[in-house]
Amino acid sequence: MAELIFRTARRADVPAIVAMLLDDEIGAARESGPPVHEEIDAAYWAGFEAVDADPRNELVVAERDGELVGTMQLTFIPSLSRRGAERLQIEAVRVRSDLRGRGIGRRMITWAVDQARERGCGLVQLTTDKRRADAHRFYASLGFQATHEGMKLIL
Amino acid sequence: MAELIFRTARRADVPAIVAMLLDDEIGAARESGPPVHEEIDAAYWAGFEAVDADPRNELVVAERDGELVGTMQLTFIPSLSRRGAERLQIEAVRVRSDLRGRGIGRRMITWAVDQARERGCGLVQLTTDKRRADAHRFYASLGFQATHEGMKLIL
Repeated sequence: MAELIFRTARRADVPAIVAMLLDDEIGAARESGPPVHEEIDAAYWAGFEAVDADPRNELVVAERDGELVGTMQLTFIPSLSRRGAERLQIEAVRVRSDLRGRGIGRRMITWAVDQARERGCGLVQLTTDKRRADAHRFYASLGFQATHEGMKLIL
Repeated sequence: MAELIFRTARRADVPAIVAMLLDDEIGAARESGPPVHEEIDAAYWAGFEAVDADPRNELVVAERDGELVGTMQLTFIPSLSRRGAERLQIEAVRVRSDLRGRGIGRRMITWAVDQARERGCGLVQLTTDKRRADAHRFYASLGFQATHEGMKLIL
């Protein structure tokens, strides 16, 4: 496989990132309105600015041959639990739909876990929709354990 | 019930907060070493400083008649998902063990959800250990749905 580069997302990446967030059956149902292509709703830009400005949040893209092939958001959460260890939370993991099943997701998560280790985090956590059985097997194969219920309240 | 006051934790609260984190069967197993009472490990202080300094993290205490009766950590996570909505994540929820079952936890979570609404969050989320069946029922009664697997990788 061609070289995969991981880097922090830039403004110019936002349309491709939003397209990946929408190009997903479960995710698409959550995003109201028509698919976003050329025009990006102002709310997405505001979301990007907020993530970009926060030193404990990093929107990451995986790039191959100059094209975005994946995205995920890393949130480093400080805490008093577990003797004051920071934890890494991974959200919004997406691989471009035509490139799934080729190990890109595995390299993304492995890279994220490596970042957490280097930073001295005590834990990496994420939640996956219970309908995504393949995602559970994927994360379990990377050492994650489904020890918790992920509970959500939509406002 | 006497009035319950919610406020941001101060340095002086840290020993009582750590005691609540430890006074819990599942939580205690996670914290290495002897119980912390008079002396607080430096790592807990560092954890407190990190949370306290972060505008997107708030360590909250519930106080009644001048005594701490509960604690929780709120993390506001910016995002591009859900049309750029911020989400509130609640972690490290504890009610003092001798005061459980009296509705303090319910008032804490209701207060946290109100904070999220006021701030314009699109979602409130948390994970609970699968062994805490009573906690699942509690959160379900507050409208949370166990739609996700909560996956953890301890480093």
